[in-house]
Amino acid sequence: MPYFDAASTAPLHPVARQALLSALDDGWADPARLYREGRRARVLLDAAREAAAEAVGCRPDELSFTPSGTHAVHSAVAGALAGRRRTGRHLVTSAVEHSCVLHAAETHRAAGGTVTEVGVDRAGRVTAEAYRAALRPDTALACLQSANHEVGTTQPVEEVAADCARAGVPLLVDAAQSLGWGAVDGGWSLLASSAHKWGGPPGVGLLVVRKGVRFAPQGPSDERERGRAPGFENLPAIVAAAASLRAVRAEAAAERARLSALVDRIRERVPMLLDDVEVVGDPVRRLPHLVTFSCLYVDGEALLGELDRLGFAVSSGSSCTSSTLTPSHVLRAMGVLSEGNVRVSLPRGTTEGDVEEFLRVLPEVVTRVRGSLDVPAAPVREEPTLDEAGLVVDALGRRCPIPVIELAKVIGDVPVGATVTVLSDDEAARLDIPAWCGMRGQEYVGEREAARGVAYVVRRLS
Amino acid sequence: MPYFDAASTAPLHPVARQALLSALDDGWADPARLYREGRRARVLLDAAREAAAEAVGCRPDELSFTPSGTHAVHSAVAGALAGRRRTGRHLVTSAVEHSCVLHAAETHRAAGGTVTEVGVDRAGRVTAEAYRAALRPDTALACLQSANHEVGTTQPVEEVAADCARAGVPLLVDAAQSLGWGAVDGGWSLLASSAHKWGGPPGVGLLVVRKGVRFAPQGPSDERERGRAPGFENLPAIVAAAASLRAVRAEAAAERARLSALVDRIRERVPMLLDDVEVVGDPVRRLPHLVTFSCLYVDGEALLGELDRLGFAVSSGSSCTSSTLTPSHVLRAMGVLSEGNVRVSLPRGTTEGDVEEFLRVLPEVVTRVRGSLDVPAAPVREEPTLDEAGLVVDALGRRCPIPVIELAKVIGDVPVGATVTVLSDDEAARLDIPAWCGMRGQEYVGEREAARGVAYVVRRLS
Repeated sequence: MPYFDAASTAPLHPVARQALLSALDDGWADPARLYREGRRARVLLDAAREAAAEAVGCRPDELSFTPSGTHAVHSAVAGALAGRRRTGRHLVTSAVEHSCVLHAAETHRAAGGTVTEVGVDRAGRVTAEAYRAALRPDTALACLQSANHEVGTTQPVEEVAADCARAGVPLLVDAAQSLGWGAVDGGWSLLASSAHKWGGPPGVGLLVVRKGVRFAPQGPSDERERGRAPGFENLPAIVAAAASLRAVRAEAAAERARLSALVDRIRERVPMLLDDVEVVGDPVRRLPHLVTFSCLYVDGEALLGELDRLGFAVSSGSSCTSSTLTPSHVLRAMGVLSEGNVRVSLPRGTTEGDVEEFLRVLPEVVTRVRGSLDVPAAPVREEPTLDEAGLVVDALGRRCPIPVIELAKVIGDVPVGATVTVLSDDEAARLDIPAWCGMRGQEYVGEREAARGVAYVVRRLS
Repeated sequence: MPYFDAASTAPLHPVARQALLSALDDGWADPARLYREGRRARVLLDAAREAAAEAVGCRPDELSFTPSGTHAVHSAVAGALAGRRRTGRHLVTSAVEHSCVLHAAETHRAAGGTVTEVGVDRAGRVTAEAYRAALRPDTALACLQSANHEVGTTQPVEEVAADCARAGVPLLVDAAQSLGWGAVDGGWSLLASSAHKWGGPPGVGLLVVRKGVRFAPQGPSDERERGRAPGFENLPAIVAAAASLRAVRAEAAAERARLSALVDRIRERVPMLLDDVEVVGDPVRRLPHLVTFSCLYVDGEALLGELDRLGFAVSSGSSCTSSTLTPSHVLRAMGVLSEGNVRVSLPRGTTEGDVEEFLRVLPEVVTRVRGSLDVPAAPVREEPTLDEAGLVVDALGRRCPIPVIELAKVIGDVPVGATVTVLSDDEAARLDIPAWCGMRGQEYVGEREAARGVAYVVRRLS
């Protein structure tokens, strides 16, 4: 059954499984001990570090193993900010970083630091110019992902790293999504990654700090991993992580070509198979294996449930599939539709047949989900207290994608040139109503606070 | 070949290995996802939590899995201190906690907090009275291990927990060494433990926070593990950790009786087999599987090396086996001899034959190591500038166990009632010269700064 959520976690690579098993036998002892079992563990740890460093393109003594990619990012941000405390307390990130970067930024802000989030274009990409403009004399650290985890867009890391180097600001690259595909080029200062994204086991992250980068690890530490990752090393998993990184790199060129062609097929075919769909993310500057699209008038959770029933595991940045009821911060930063959002990320070995089957069932599934959403019409009334004359759709208390569906239902009743106002207290409406206008060629006038919820005003142009 | 260092890390339990393998197949997906693979992972995670909570004696929603026991302790200390910030910033620990507790205390002190270390008796045990006396109105948190990792002595946790409860102070119990043997009794508030100590895989710790305990997790967090352990769950290892905890508990009563008898045998026989040896730690209130002794005039690293050559893996708290050149803080706090220190901790399944073989080779090995240390005598001179008349042994620049050996060489030349002074810049001398006096029935007069190093003054009594 096709698993299409490799960007959440990749299935364990066979090489990782084999290495894990053999390291459970040979690498279970404490590598800090001097007896034979400890020395054997130390040899395995050193070899894993050499292999990982070679794949990253750094010196082994620049690389520490951490308990996860999230830990690596949290430690990197805290340590680099503390190391440059004298320079200032300004942190730069992109608006589309993984949540672990944004959580670290939030902690920094709560502790009195300042944060600039560099915006992205509709493809989810920062420009080097915008990033450069965010750097200040008091910037202690800049963070940029190598590639986005939700839409696959790659970032101009090499150019941004050069700008940061000129400004004397260290750049931390979150390479979680891309390290299995290749080393990160350019003069970055710190790098974090996560083994379970490249087919390694969970429980292993990488933290790389280039020589000469000011770095002051925060919190209690011990003698392990150069004082940058306290606690007993998870050695069998580390050995497996390094082995699988080598293995996926060996296969990377072939898989890149193969999966990229399959993703191209999805990118081309989905808009032909479905009405009212938007494929998001950069079509060229992207990860080989990842594509994301959003479907108007579709409840994301229902869509994922239907696909799951048919054996397809995908994920979604729609608000309706998360517990927080807010759409993904990535889609929000891009300003694209979030409703009915589907992320397809193909693991190694995905076949053409799997993708064809997905494309075969997708239209039926979307049609079925859209059909089930043909809900009774919301109250529509004239609203004299609002500035705009015209229709008001009361979608209060109704969740994505209902507000947009209600808007679509009444737009035909609005005279060309007149406005319709949608009242909604659903956070997704802020993103999806403007996106709908863009897709439908209508004018999005704006929003303002209403007595309850927010009033979104749309002018019919055609 | 006998591995006698279970207190560092226990060999993987066969049940853990089996559970790990099967969870690699069934529990590799993200338990936060709603598709089938994710739901299956969630079921495994919930079941592991139930099993671990049952073994701890807590509610499943009080227990979070962390990446290590060290992480659990660091998070517990930071979160509990922050949660009670309004009460004060005073932290109480015992002097013989695991270094990860002391590192957390050090971080707290560096951030402006205060720390009281409660001393121990010569067996390494705190008294409930001394612990109670350390509690203050501004005490935010108290920490006490269930059993000591270096000498095996169990602590009066139940009594201390009751005293803490009366004082309104939460008690954090580090149960890393004991949880495999049984639940920690008493009204503790927080508990930390580590799976690789009970035969689980590395990469898994437990953090338990009782309902109603004020707790504010520090640093960036995410939605995983109730916000107390950020990062992708190490699910296969978690499943294996819970399975092996159940398994070792099922075997605990039988192994406890068996290993305890083997340890008793070592405790009794070592002083009969060897001269000038001190078995340390409480002979009764102790872990079943652990015994520690120290040998006068023995270089600990040489001793471990010889034992390793014969196939015995043990560890040591001697300064001469560590990179820091200071004796273990535990032996220091107990005031016992640190030189020639050997910790024997038996893993499950250790046979009588293994122990007998160890006892057979130990005397030869110690004799050989003592023989190799018959070094040329240090300069001995009359020292008119010191207050005491008498011999001065210059052991400057010479490491443990040489200063004590030099002292032993000259004591026969000192008239009864007169003193001898040892000049030493080795940190271990501070512990080992008084310990030698205790073992030899001589009087330790005291120490004071010398022009170089420290002058240790000993009076010959017999």
